[in-house]
Amino acid sequence: MRPPTSAVPLTAGNGRVKEARKLSRRSVRAERRLFLADGPKAVEGALGADGCVVEVFATPTATGQYAGLASADVPWTLVDDKALAGLSDSVSPAGVVALCRFLDRPLADLLGSQERRLLAICADIRDPGNAGTVIRCADAAGADAVVFAGHSVDAYNPKTVRASVGSLFHLPLAVEPDPADAVRAAQAAGLVVLAADGAGEVDLERAGELLARPTAWLFGNEAWGLPAELAALADHRVRIPIHGRAESLNLSTAAALCLYASAREQRR
Amino acid sequence: MRPPTSAVPLTAGNGRVKEARKLSRRSVRAERRLFLADGPKAVEGALGADGCVVEVFATPTATGQYAGLASADVPWTLVDDKALAGLSDSVSPAGVVALCRFLDRPLADLLGSQERRLLAICADIRDPGNAGTVIRCADAAGADAVVFAGHSVDAYNPKTVRASVGSLFHLPLAVEPDPADAVRAAQAAGLVVLAADGAGEVDLERAGELLARPTAWLFGNEAWGLPAELAALADHRVRIPIHGRAESLNLSTAAALCLYASAREQRR
Repeated sequence: MRPPTSAVPLTAGNGRVKEARKLSRRSVRAERRLFLADGPKAVEGALGADGCVVEVFATPTATGQYAGLASADVPWTLVDDKALAGLSDSVSPAGVVALCRFLDRPLADLLGSQERRLLAICADIRDPGNAGTVIRCADAAGADAVVFAGHSVDAYNPKTVRASVGSLFHLPLAVEPDPADAVRAAQAAGLVVLAADGAGEVDLERAGELLARPTAWLFGNEAWGLPAELAALADHRVRIPIHGRAESLNLSTAAALCLYASAREQRR
Repeated sequence: MRPPTSAVPLTAGNGRVKEARKLSRRSVRAERRLFLADGPKAVEGALGADGCVVEVFATPTATGQYAGLASADVPWTLVDDKALAGLSDSVSPAGVVALCRFLDRPLADLLGSQERRLLAICADIRDPGNAGTVIRCADAAGADAVVFAGHSVDAYNPKTVRASVGSLFHLPLAVEPDPADAVRAAQAAGLVVLAADGAGEVDLERAGELLARPTAWLFGNEAWGLPAELAALADHRVRIPIHGRAESLNLSTAAALCLYASAREQRR
């Protein structure tokens, strides 16, 4: 449908706007299985994911600017600047926000529905920006899915959505409370589980053929890495060589190196 | 010397503390060529860099906790909690901050003093966290130096120092106002300049022998990448293959992939 440019924009006091604004709280998101995707990149990504978007909220100005995003299948609702600002967590909102349905699927379903060759399992990742960047890297490296396991940050946190730059909508996602269950499920599905671990016994640069196998990478918390008992469940623990004097790499750069190393070997 | 655990801690009103606090401003840092390194990791890194630390400020509690950091060559000054909080940009200060001398050297000096095999040139990088992460990656990949060129963020920004996790103190740094001058200086020193560019003509995964040569990587701004005329100055423009549907990678993950690709080929 065409954006309703002649309609009267909803104000911040409107019931639908007020309900949507509550989705800034994780508990409300979890209960309703709804979240907000903020800005044109995220909205474009969300509209590209089948059945994800319930409704798009946009200011009249943004409606003119991003008219190309309007789709016949999704209601496009005009809101005023103040109402939009209440839905955005950005300091300078771009003027367009999508109300989206949760995307995650049960891990068993995700692993059982088709053959998977490259997975990223995030265990207890806490920083929303890091989490979004890992999703973006996994997408870029051609991974089949991302699993948020344990006490990880909410995948639908506004900062995570933003840092994923649309990738949250590109590849399947599962949320699994117990990281050990995620590891065992990946193994049962025929994947080799490789734990990214600074003290790992395998050097990433010398892992060669191991990396060519269908793989689930297991990444741990930004500050303390993987608990020993979880790392021990993996089939191998892999370290990224540190050639200089840095103690370690940060989570998202480590994930990029691991996932791209797999992509390289799997596509040889 | 031993930490002076019996001295009276300086308060926030003390002249030296007040002068140090002014270093939260970039202009004051630039004028005095002094900056603050906050937290035990950064202080440890700074103490490991010859002649870098002027003085360490620490609370009595942190002095007990980090007594191992105290060095015979550097004054260790007790300050109270409030004074320390004023020197730290952290919401929960660890209690120890080092007053440090700038580390950067003229680029000509850095390139002329010894053979360089792997450099990272950051052109117009704006996000302090990204900048610190690039320094950390460059260190981990065994790079010889990092160059902050053009209108890049201040390398001594507290967020950059923190994100580098000590790596700022591990490898030589140059600051060069004109990115084109940095590229030409690297070429004159015998380095191949490779521009990281999503539309580059060379695929990173197929660059093989090119990567084995002494290399300066050129990284552009987070949002808009490298200006065309600057990318054109490089010897080659190299793209990281995108296997999935992501449009691009973020700066620090791209830098990690490029620098580690060089390290791998150079160390074969």
